[in-house]
Amino acid sequence: NGFDSYFGIPYSNDMDRVQTAPRGRTAFLKPKIEYWNVPLMKNNSIIERPAQQTTITRRYTEAAIEFIEKKKDQPFFLYLPHSLPHVPLFRSPAFAGQSRRGLYGDVIEEIDWSVGQVLNTLKRCGIDQHTLVFFTSDNGPWLIFNEHGGSAGLLRDGKGSTWEGGMREPTLAWWPGTIKAGSVSAAVSSTMDIYATALNQAAIPLPKDRTLDSYDLTPVLTGTGTSGRKLLFYYRGYRLMAVRKGPWKMHLMTQNAYGQKDPVKHDPPQLYHLEHDPGENYELGKQHPEVITDLMQDIKKHQQALKPAPSQLEL
Amino acid sequence: NGFDSYFGIPYSNDMDRVQTAPRGRTAFLKPKIEYWNVPLMKNNSIIERPAQQTTITRRYTEAAIEFIEKKKDQPFFLYLPHSLPHVPLFRSPAFAGQSRRGLYGDVIEEIDWSVGQVLNTLKRCGIDQHTLVFFTSDNGPWLIFNEHGGSAGLLRDGKGSTWEGGMREPTLAWWPGTIKAGSVSAAVSSTMDIYATALNQAAIPLPKDRTLDSYDLTPVLTGTGTSGRKLLFYYRGYRLMAVRKGPWKMHLMTQNAYGQKDPVKHDPPQLYHLEHDPGENYELGKQHPEVITDLMQDIKKHQQALKPAPSQLEL
Repeated sequence: NGFDSYFGIPYSNDMDRVQTAPRGRTAFLKPKIEYWNVPLMKNNSIIERPAQQTTITRRYTEAAIEFIEKKKDQPFFLYLPHSLPHVPLFRSPAFAGQSRRGLYGDVIEEIDWSVGQVLNTLKRCGIDQHTLVFFTSDNGPWLIFNEHGGSAGLLRDGKGSTWEGGMREPTLAWWPGTIKAGSVSAAVSSTMDIYATALNQAAIPLPKDRTLDSYDLTPVLTGTGTSGRKLLFYYRGYRLMAVRKGPWKMHLMTQNAYGQKDPVKHDPPQLYHLEHDPGENYELGKQHPEVITDLMQDIKKHQQALKPAPSQLEL
Repeated sequence: NGFDSYFGIPYSNDMDRVQTAPRGRTAFLKPKIEYWNVPLMKNNSIIERPAQQTTITRRYTEAAIEFIEKKKDQPFFLYLPHSLPHVPLFRSPAFAGQSRRGLYGDVIEEIDWSVGQVLNTLKRCGIDQHTLVFFTSDNGPWLIFNEHGGSAGLLRDGKGSTWEGGMREPTLAWWPGTIKAGSVSAAVSSTMDIYATALNQAAIPLPKDRTLDSYDLTPVLTGTGTSGRKLLFYYRGYRLMAVRKGPWKMHLMTQNAYGQKDPVKHDPPQLYHLEHDPGENYELGKQHPEVITDLMQDIKKHQQALKPAPSQLEL
């Protein structure tokens, strides 16, 4: 799997649904461990099946702490992608009823606890001043799961769409002594930028045999400059749906996460000003045709630079 | 007007639209001072017409500072209801382009500056330890004005409706030495509670010849207890639309701010759990009929206690 060691559920925690589990969303809204026969793996061995998801956040955290303590005297890369709050939702007994937000809130409280444990471990090991921690998410709320999904606030739509509610995530970066506590950046960045950032911090040159869509975030994190990312391309599968440049977002196509079978093509493309209108409510293409012309040029250059690679899922 | 002294535009800043101004929303989206012939009054005299709204936030602030400096050695009540960010939007030249959020953001920046000026004045006069400051708003965003309105975030609908987006406002309370900095309360409260709170702080007994819907917030502010407010009634004009008790909100009727000519009556009423579902997306009446029964009793008691008074607008 590309890592030296591994502990976790190797895919989403809602897979391997058993035949006898309730159909549709019912299984999720009143979840039981035995409905999903997902494996818990340690390196290449299945050590538990179904994974006891109630304690999965706690056990991922404990494994992360153990890993940090073992690696504290050398450089390391730890990737801690919690299975939760993906549905089905589970939390340790200690977090039952700890939030005002029901089961979803309790799950978030436990993840918050987990983050605290990781940061405290770094401090205790004396490596907090030379460890960079990112906390972020891969996508917006899964809205069809009602209170079991999250909320994208004022952002439009959710997971599965290229509206901001599906793609835009808050990110916290922590590095005492290097990143100023409480500083805020609105720089457009991508989880893909963690790659260039990590390589730069490890003093490893970026590969030169390919065109990368990854920018070193160090200047953004330290408040000394910009990352060089000027464009963000929004894909749904292989399909380029939208592009962002500065405050402008242009949609070639849109498709709601649910309720629209096919994408709707926009010709001319739709244009939104995300700083004035983060909710993508007020289309401005007619007022700013020059922005559309400029972004169409950027898309052309992007597509010319793209060299399709075989899908990793089909290797 | 019920105050000892007065300085301001005596009604909304979008009134007195002149005949020659553009029709509809056009006047608002590209506002000019001369479109609204609103008066600026000092006590009972009109001192400027049309009010030069570009500097109105700054001048309200200066008047507030002057008032505080004059009254600093005695108890006082200052009500500083900024005309902005009600549309039409205007800001001082110093705030042009100061925010990422366009004209609306610049207006908010100037109001933020204004609040800082008021708090600094209280400190400079040495009365910050015995002055209670509330900062809040009267209603949610006016959504038909696009980027010139605000956003209610994840709350449903906006100004003009009894969905949370129309009625629920954040409030900051500041009283160094008495209110703990950074403390947070989710207690349901109302601007009507400022009345009982202010009277209590001034050691004036509440009138006993009427039934009040006002609760002293002091225990909430100091973190020592609750205010006694168990119910919040949502009116649209004379019409009782909804009621909240704890996490539950029950709608007898709903009407969107725009696009619904008449209220829709719900029988049985609609029920939402505002802690699990602040966006009022997931109706739960069928699952919790006992909550509806309980709230219907509360409404009955409320209506029996109500003594209709003549409208202040018709006095």
